[in-house]
Amino acid sequence: MTIEDVKSHLICVHPLDNVAVAVNAGGLPKGTPLTEGFAVREFVPAAHKVALRDIPQGSSIVRYGQVIGYAAIDIAQGAWVHTEIMTLPAPPALDALPLATAVPPELPPITGMTFQGYRNADGSVGTKNLLGITTTVQCVAPTVEFAVRRIKAELLPRYPNVDDVLAITHPYGCGVAINAPGADVPIRTIRNLSLNPNFGGAPMAVSLGCEKLQPARLFPGSPSLPVLGDDGYVIRLQDAEHHSFGDMIAAIMRAAERRLEQLNRRQRTTCPASDLVVGLQCGGSDAFSGVTANPSLGYAADLLVRAGATVMFSEVTEVRDAIHLLTARAASVEVAEELIREMAWYDEYLDRGSADRSANPTPGNKRGGLSNIVEKALGSIAKSGSTAIRAVVRPGDRVINRGLVFAATPASDFICGTLQTAAGMNMHVFTTGEGTPYGLATVPVIKVSSQTQLAERWPDLIDLDAGRIATGEASIEDVGRELFQMILDVASGRRRTWADHWGLHNATALFNPGPVT
Amino acid sequence: MTIEDVKSHLICVHPLDNVAVAVNAGGLPKGTPLTEGFAVREFVPAAHKVALRDIPQGSSIVRYGQVIGYAAIDIAQGAWVHTEIMTLPAPPALDALPLATAVPPELPPITGMTFQGYRNADGSVGTKNLLGITTTVQCVAPTVEFAVRRIKAELLPRYPNVDDVLAITHPYGCGVAINAPGADVPIRTIRNLSLNPNFGGAPMAVSLGCEKLQPARLFPGSPSLPVLGDDGYVIRLQDAEHHSFGDMIAAIMRAAERRLEQLNRRQRTTCPASDLVVGLQCGGSDAFSGVTANPSLGYAADLLVRAGATVMFSEVTEVRDAIHLLTARAASVEVAEELIREMAWYDEYLDRGSADRSANPTPGNKRGGLSNIVEKALGSIAKSGSTAIRAVVRPGDRVINRGLVFAATPASDFICGTLQTAAGMNMHVFTTGEGTPYGLATVPVIKVSSQTQLAERWPDLIDLDAGRIATGEASIEDVGRELFQMILDVASGRRRTWADHWGLHNATALFNPGPVT
Repeated sequence: MTIEDVKSHLICVHPLDNVAVAVNAGGLPKGTPLTEGFAVREFVPAAHKVALRDIPQGSSIVRYGQVIGYAAIDIAQGAWVHTEIMTLPAPPALDALPLATAVPPELPPITGMTFQGYRNADGSVGTKNLLGITTTVQCVAPTVEFAVRRIKAELLPRYPNVDDVLAITHPYGCGVAINAPGADVPIRTIRNLSLNPNFGGAPMAVSLGCEKLQPARLFPGSPSLPVLGDDGYVIRLQDAEHHSFGDMIAAIMRAAERRLEQLNRRQRTTCPASDLVVGLQCGGSDAFSGVTANPSLGYAADLLVRAGATVMFSEVTEVRDAIHLLTARAASVEVAEELIREMAWYDEYLDRGSADRSANPTPGNKRGGLSNIVEKALGSIAKSGSTAIRAVVRPGDRVINRGLVFAATPASDFICGTLQTAAGMNMHVFTTGEGTPYGLATVPVIKVSSQTQLAERWPDLIDLDAGRIATGEASIEDVGRELFQMILDVASGRRRTWADHWGLHNATALFNPGPVT
Repeated sequence: MTIEDVKSHLICVHPLDNVAVAVNAGGLPKGTPLTEGFAVREFVPAAHKVALRDIPQGSSIVRYGQVIGYAAIDIAQGAWVHTEIMTLPAPPALDALPLATAVPPELPPITGMTFQGYRNADGSVGTKNLLGITTTVQCVAPTVEFAVRRIKAELLPRYPNVDDVLAITHPYGCGVAINAPGADVPIRTIRNLSLNPNFGGAPMAVSLGCEKLQPARLFPGSPSLPVLGDDGYVIRLQDAEHHSFGDMIAAIMRAAERRLEQLNRRQRTTCPASDLVVGLQCGGSDAFSGVTANPSLGYAADLLVRAGATVMFSEVTEVRDAIHLLTARAASVEVAEELIREMAWYDEYLDRGSADRSANPTPGNKRGGLSNIVEKALGSIAKSGSTAIRAVVRPGDRVINRGLVFAATPASDFICGTLQTAAGMNMHVFTTGEGTPYGLATVPVIKVSSQTQLAERWPDLIDLDAGRIATGEASIEDVGRELFQMILDVASGRRRTWADHWGLHNATALFNPGPVT
């Protein structure tokens, strides 16, 4: 058997590794011979790990050149290495991390890359042209949804340049401890969601009147925006002027029509790629995610950074165990300290709820060969590419930096997507191994599969197959370049994602660290 | 001026009270003469309080015969008594409460009251005939919503006895600390939501496959329910048999059609009123709520209990300050201790989040004349009527007792409504002073206004006006009896609520005391 045969069986990503991942779709049968001169000792499922050497009890299991766990028993060469025979290493201590000790040199800039976007007055650029109707409280959500159905049926056809009308609904706004520590997070999230570039700087809000989250608290210091009344952008249902439900709907529709007129005048223009704000995420990950989809996304992230764009990666609980690699890559000691601050906040938040990082990964992750959160984290950060981390964004805040940014969010797909949308994201890339029909209403979502098997099984949900990297049909660079071009095409409206084709839009999921009342 | 004139100005609910509430719509102008021989010293807004006597600084302000606060300054007879000049009393200590010391005697039973409902195999009775499609995780929500749109358009017209098809969606299921303390609450809530009587014992669920909340965990020990496959009630999107998004939708539609066939065979039959499970709630309350809407709802609650029905009241933070009145009314020491256990749990939960009960009431409550949570609580418990409290239900659990039950939930309208639905509610009554277009998809919601002004302004949202009690047009008993009859009519499908007329359905809002990850 030749080296080429083995390559189709195992992927080993770092010379120090003592485990490698089984590549072929059906897994490796017991006795499969390997090039190193040994055979597989037992059936190893696809995407799961094989021991390349004997690993005595208590010694390190190494993948990505990092310790992902310790052998709970003596593990023989050729054995299946899985969750049950590994112990979890302690997370890196936050008081002994390298700070900006390995700042990557700047990569050569890429110029001349453009997309067709909707330029906003504040300089941001939309990739869709949407009317978003913010709700201050869940009380008004069904009323706004009723109005949106009518707006879409009766008004939208007259404004062909507007792509869609959305109700931005959520369970916040009342029945919450609005002055508790952490309450700022959901409040600024709703505010910044309403100001996402794809809403064209034309926010509109519906308030009940008696709720805790008053419009003036949601949009403080917005003197350019009138507050109430016929010309305003806020409709308050309890105002005496509304003499029926019909009146409320009519008022919302009048305000919506003014916004539609403004939005309909917008036209796509040529914008530099530096106007992209791309949010990266993974969900339903498997052991391939870290060798196919995430590295190719990392390559695309580097291209975007070189083109001057903003690239956000996130998911605190999924980078926590690799934080020593990120603090070293921070562009400055200050940025490294902000990373540590966010990790420490989350450690404390989980501790307060008597939870810990072992709550991640999921059953599906484990089935997909990811043994624990350390292995998941190392694969997860691959999507951040290789450039310096320029800034850290708190949950719910808007990003203002260019280059690679860490947006501190929970790993929950919906909460992360919601917070990245609030951060000003105008393009979203989502990698998946197990597969998920994820999508967002506000921002286009490109879904990348880590395995060809998934891309073939879900041809009408997966936009790009990075599984070709495992089979040798394409390189990480090939898929990364393809993805970069796809981002430009989707951002320009030239190409539609499957999630947008089917209208698959996950809910706005707020991060509320405070109690409800 | 006569006593009758004064009655139209002020309502005083207890002989010990030293404040009374201004009744007339426009408020009381400065100088308005009152029967007690003094005049109003300053403008008092409608529903706000007037001092009936001088109240020296530091002494008690009494309403409902209970101390609602202390005078922060010397308050003169005829002055406006509001939040700013009151201090908040300490909440009743949980270790010194009267336990079952004032158990009300049983009221005479009412027999022969019936409604037309859908009897289920487990003995519960539906007031609607709905197909509910449960989601184990938010990942699948847009896919299920896509399928529901097609089911409503293509299948539902062939099953005329089925009222509607609902996707039961939520942000839980993954990205959460599923083994943290408190995680049982959202999990059992989703389970019991799926088993609400209005879904006819025909649960159906859509799972992704890799999520933390696996179907077997959501529905443990349901041997009567097949698990997976074409004849099962669970569709798992990641299963190898689905070769496209189209396949997934087709599989959901096939399972839905089997459920629709079962549900379509159901017919309304005559059921005793004792099969009603009525959830009570208030939201957007004002100072009238405690003298008009809530007491008349309390009267209806007594009628329901006398007819053998189950009546649930809830909202821990809104009864906490009146808990001494409830523990005394508990049917047994054990029930009183369960009340205390729930209060203690919530005290600790708020404390952990550095919040306290002053987070309630809302700005609208205060504008409506409710000075603090003590006054709000005293008005709130009026809706529980006067019977003994027979049982306490934990958040997310299903109620099994008849009679008056305290279902421990947050006060948030949506979370309370969701938890009462999970508890098995088949009718919901919601009182409001400020007004809210609240509604639920699963259970009919009767909305009762505390003021005639609101009922007149929102004639197409408010189902019953209890404001007539303040103006003397009707008694508490009159409105209570009217409401009892309306509950029977709506439960029978003879009468439709405004929320159902317009299709106003608030979101499923889970109570998740645990962290997200």
